[in-house]
Amino acid sequence: MSFPLTAESTQQLLDAALEQAKNGVRGVNPLVGAVIADAQGDILATGFHRGAGTPHAEADALHNLAQLLGKALTAGQDQTIDPATLTMFVTLEPCNHFGRTGPCSHAIVDAGIGRVVYAVADATDHAAGGASYLKEHGVKVMDGEQLNPEWARASRELNARWFQAQNQQRPFTTLHLAQTLDSNIAASDGTSQWITGAESREHSHVIRSRADAIIVGTGTIVADNPQLTARDSAGELYPKQPVRVAMGLREIPADARIRDHGEFMHLPTRDPAEVLEALTQKGISHAMIEGGSSIATAFLAADLVDEIWLYQAPKLLGSGISALKDLGISTLSEALEFELDDVDGPAVRQLGTDVLLHLTPRNEK
Amino acid sequence: MSFPLTAESTQQLLDAALEQAKNGVRGVNPLVGAVIADAQGDILATGFHRGAGTPHAEADALHNLAQLLGKALTAGQDQTIDPATLTMFVTLEPCNHFGRTGPCSHAIVDAGIGRVVYAVADATDHAAGGASYLKEHGVKVMDGEQLNPEWARASRELNARWFQAQNQQRPFTTLHLAQTLDSNIAASDGTSQWITGAESREHSHVIRSRADAIIVGTGTIVADNPQLTARDSAGELYPKQPVRVAMGLREIPADARIRDHGEFMHLPTRDPAEVLEALTQKGISHAMIEGGSSIATAFLAADLVDEIWLYQAPKLLGSGISALKDLGISTLSEALEFELDDVDGPAVRQLGTDVLLHLTPRNEK
Repeated sequence: MSFPLTAESTQQLLDAALEQAKNGVRGVNPLVGAVIADAQGDILATGFHRGAGTPHAEADALHNLAQLLGKALTAGQDQTIDPATLTMFVTLEPCNHFGRTGPCSHAIVDAGIGRVVYAVADATDHAAGGASYLKEHGVKVMDGEQLNPEWARASRELNARWFQAQNQQRPFTTLHLAQTLDSNIAASDGTSQWITGAESREHSHVIRSRADAIIVGTGTIVADNPQLTARDSAGELYPKQPVRVAMGLREIPADARIRDHGEFMHLPTRDPAEVLEALTQKGISHAMIEGGSSIATAFLAADLVDEIWLYQAPKLLGSGISALKDLGISTLSEALEFELDDVDGPAVRQLGTDVLLHLTPRNEK
Repeated sequence: MSFPLTAESTQQLLDAALEQAKNGVRGVNPLVGAVIADAQGDILATGFHRGAGTPHAEADALHNLAQLLGKALTAGQDQTIDPATLTMFVTLEPCNHFGRTGPCSHAIVDAGIGRVVYAVADATDHAAGGASYLKEHGVKVMDGEQLNPEWARASRELNARWFQAQNQQRPFTTLHLAQTLDSNIAASDGTSQWITGAESREHSHVIRSRADAIIVGTGTIVADNPQLTARDSAGELYPKQPVRVAMGLREIPADARIRDHGEFMHLPTRDPAEVLEALTQKGISHAMIEGGSSIATAFLAADLVDEIWLYQAPKLLGSGISALKDLGISTLSEALEFELDDVDGPAVRQLGTDVLLHLTPRNEK
């Protein structure tokens, strides 16, 4: 198989695969992007993973290629394009795992794709082995680490916190913060409805609807009596509702609204690690941390926040109820540092009259 | 003079003038934009006011038109385009004032422009009378209020705080805030260098260089001993340095660095209105409020902040020195409300690793 690409065109293909990955959403699964190119380096199809239960990036790209060709792509059959001349660039080693979707390694072999270049080896117990399967079935496989270490590094960093959560055998966590510009989540008299606007609340419900569980402090339940359902802009419940998880030592009133829809559990602990362990045992892979400030602070202080959606209303209160309490940090060099995250839309955006920031913990360099 | 424009094409011209105005900067003078269109509604030239001492929007547009025509535009002379067939749309009544630049009313008459449509009457004592001058010299003048009240409203709102400052006979004020995502300007041990990154600091020096004066609390001088110069990215001083104004009751050390460059004054008061009055008497038209938190809070509480540049570093400290102190607000409905301001660049932007928000107080609707 020939591969006459220049370094420059290869770089473009690698970048394109990485950009595809960023179209996905953080949560249960890693972010993965794929492009399929011909021997001239022209991209024929792209794909990315949209989230739990949807096709993997490779399958998405193969599907798009088949659509382009007007028929299913099958190795050895008469094609307008010989799939053996094609290369798939993918930011994570294709899985070898029968889960909610079939193994990508098999799909690639079945489609007759000639070569696969992947950025990062899949080290998870259940899905590894894709590269071996591909090689055994005659697909040329190239490790991106050798082809372009920077691409491999960027693809790995994109999922650094996801890999870390996997290693720690805990759910991936998403922190929700909605505050004024001076970081208050309520005025000093406790009024907080609504700090942010309708667009922000709508967006946060989309984020909720993706999570398997939503964690809230018992203090917030007693103070605000939230429903914690995920509703669309029309107020209708999304098909998937996260398990509602109350953490903390206060008792939950029998008529609390959090008990109204779907599953509810009360974990009588203030320790975020204990909460995540209990959720892992329940099979929960993605938890959203709703608040209030004690809960947000506890997860941040324990380095158990994998991403933050920070909604900022263009308001100032001066004094009020701060979004965070003491993190045990007394000097600037110890501050928790984050990076703007351009996955799933711009890292910094205007949302109605509010501002939305998307952040991930800064990776150790 | 014919004017066969449709409502739709007129709307486009009005919108274009307003967008031009937003290219300017807030400060000494109002934001003004102008477009010059032919009888078919095609825009031949645009202009905006770049700030104190630079040509007004009308002069800028006339200059650009002359450049397009390849020669100076003079009424009655042989032209490729008869200026009498042209209409200037401008968001503020042309000035009639000999200041650092000549009066726009005279320039428009001299250029032979047939018609002027302006959005907002100039009610300032020194510059009013432009429309009368134009009419007296045969220019057809139309008040935008009649043509399109929404355009007039938007043009007026764009400068709502500028007009307010003029009415109050005080300088226009720009508040600088540089904070963590949880609104701390320093850690609890006082460390604050540097919360924000180099790009943010560079931008804030540009803002400084535009101001006539920079206001800082005596507490900040004692604590941080800042220079408060405006320097470019190479560390060189900008040609124009703001007067350094210390407000507050603490004594300024004889060796304080704030005394090093150019003019310095100490106003022994904590009252922002007194400070602005003293600056007005000194002929200062634009003041930047540098900090610290007591000073920022005092100006905000007195409704004496006309715009905010809010630099946010992607860091969390939990506890620390808050950007603001008590504003006397105890309930959410009393929160100070702002609007994202897309003048002088996007209202919300990524600046290096930081986020920059540009805000103006929300106008009463």
